[in-house]
Amino acid sequence: MTGTPLLDDRARLRADPLAFGVGARVTVAVMADRYADVILGAVRGADATGLVLDTGDVSTYAGGSEADLLRWLTDLSAAVAASGEHAAIAVHLSRGCPGEAVCELPGGAGPRSTDVPAGRETGTFASAEWALYPLADQVTAGVEPDHMRDIHAAIDFARGNGTFRKSEHFVTRLEGDLGRVLETVLAGWTMVGRSVQHVTSHLTISVNSPSHRGARP
Amino acid sequence: MTGTPLLDDRARLRADPLAFGVGARVTVAVMADRYADVILGAVRGADATGLVLDTGDVSTYAGGSEADLLRWLTDLSAAVAASGEHAAIAVHLSRGCPGEAVCELPGGAGPRSTDVPAGRETGTFASAEWALYPLADQVTAGVEPDHMRDIHAAIDFARGNGTFRKSEHFVTRLEGDLGRVLETVLAGWTMVGRSVQHVTSHLTISVNSPSHRGARP
Repeated sequence: MTGTPLLDDRARLRADPLAFGVGARVTVAVMADRYADVILGAVRGADATGLVLDTGDVSTYAGGSEADLLRWLTDLSAAVAASGEHAAIAVHLSRGCPGEAVCELPGGAGPRSTDVPAGRETGTFASAEWALYPLADQVTAGVEPDHMRDIHAAIDFARGNGTFRKSEHFVTRLEGDLGRVLETVLAGWTMVGRSVQHVTSHLTISVNSPSHRGARP
Repeated sequence: MTGTPLLDDRARLRADPLAFGVGARVTVAVMADRYADVILGAVRGADATGLVLDTGDVSTYAGGSEADLLRWLTDLSAAVAASGEHAAIAVHLSRGCPGEAVCELPGGAGPRSTDVPAGRETGTFASAEWALYPLADQVTAGVEPDHMRDIHAAIDFARGNGTFRKSEHFVTRLEGDLGRVLETVLAGWTMVGRSVQHVTSHLTISVNSPSHRGARP
C-alpha cells in the first residue's frame, strides 16, 4: 500500500489489529537446565485465543488485539514464574506500523483508540525496566499528537496501580505483582496510542531473582 | 538543566558521552543451572575501560563512548557464548537523552557525530532481532534530521558485513558472527545519530541455541 489511504481505508486499518500491526515479540529465558520444558509448558498453557502466533529461535511473535495480548502475556509469564526458576522475559510491543524499517502505513491510518485492557493479579513478584516510544509523531488523520501528555498519563497510571518505582537511565523501573506490571505497560502503550499512530514499548522483566527472596507483590 | 543551552554548552554536551547520555542496558540470561557463575565470569572478564557500570537485578547499565561500549558488549557476549550454554542477551542502547520519560536536553544539544566503531570477529554464531528508533526527530542545533536516509544506510551496512537476513514483524533479523552482529547494531545507532539527537536501539541475541546446531559464523 502506498500513498494516503482513503477515509474508509483508514477506519478499516484502525479497526483491524492485524492490519494496524498490533502485536508483541516475546523472549522467555529460563535460567535452569530444564529451560525447554518450562518454556514449552508455559507456551502450551497460555490462552492464545484471538492471536496469531509464530515461534522463532530468538522470540515468539503474537499478533492481535491489545486485550488478547495482555491476557496471553500474563498467562505466559505467570506460568514461567510458577516454575520457581529465575527467568528474564523480554517483551517488545508495537502498534501502528506492520513493517519494520519502512512503515507500511505511510499515508497515515491515524491513531487507533482502544480501551485500556484490564490485567489480573498473579500473586508473583516481578521487577522490570520499561521504555515507551511514541514514533511517527506527526499529525495523522487530523489528530494532533501530544505524547508528553500521554506519557505522563501512563506514569500516573503506574503510580495509581502501585507499580511505579523510579526513573533510571533510559527506563522506568516497575515493581509489584507480575500481572500489574504487564497491565501498566499495556496501558501506557494504548494510552500514548490515542494520539500517536506508531507506538512501541520494550519491557524486561525479572522473576524469581535471587535478589528478590522474600519479596511479595 | 532547562531551556536552550548556549552554543558552548551544546558542544560540551555532544563531546562528553556521559553528559550526552551515551550508554547501554544489558540483560544476560543464561539457560543453565550454573547461570550465576557464567554471568559473573563474563562480567569480570570484559574490558570495561572508559565505562561507568552499575549492575541491578534486571540489567547492567554501562555509560561511555560508543567504541568502549562495543568492545565491552563484544567481550561480555563472547564470554557468555564461550560457556557453550544457550543464552539470550538483551541490549538496549540510548544516546541523546540522559533521562527517560522526560528528556533532560530539551533545548537541543544537537546530534553527536562520531566514527562508526570497529567490531571484531568472535568465531561464534548468533541470531538476533533488531529495532532502531530515531526519537525527538526535530531540527536541533540547526541540523535537519533525515532518519529514513540514515536507517537505509544502516541496513546497507548490515548487508555489507553479511549480517542482514530479512525483515520480520517490528524487527530486522541479523545472523552471523556475534561480533559482527553487535558491530552492525552499534553502526546503525551511531549513523542515525548523525542527524537525530535522541536515538535508541533494542537488540535480542540468541547464542548456542539448539536451533543453531552446526551453524557457523
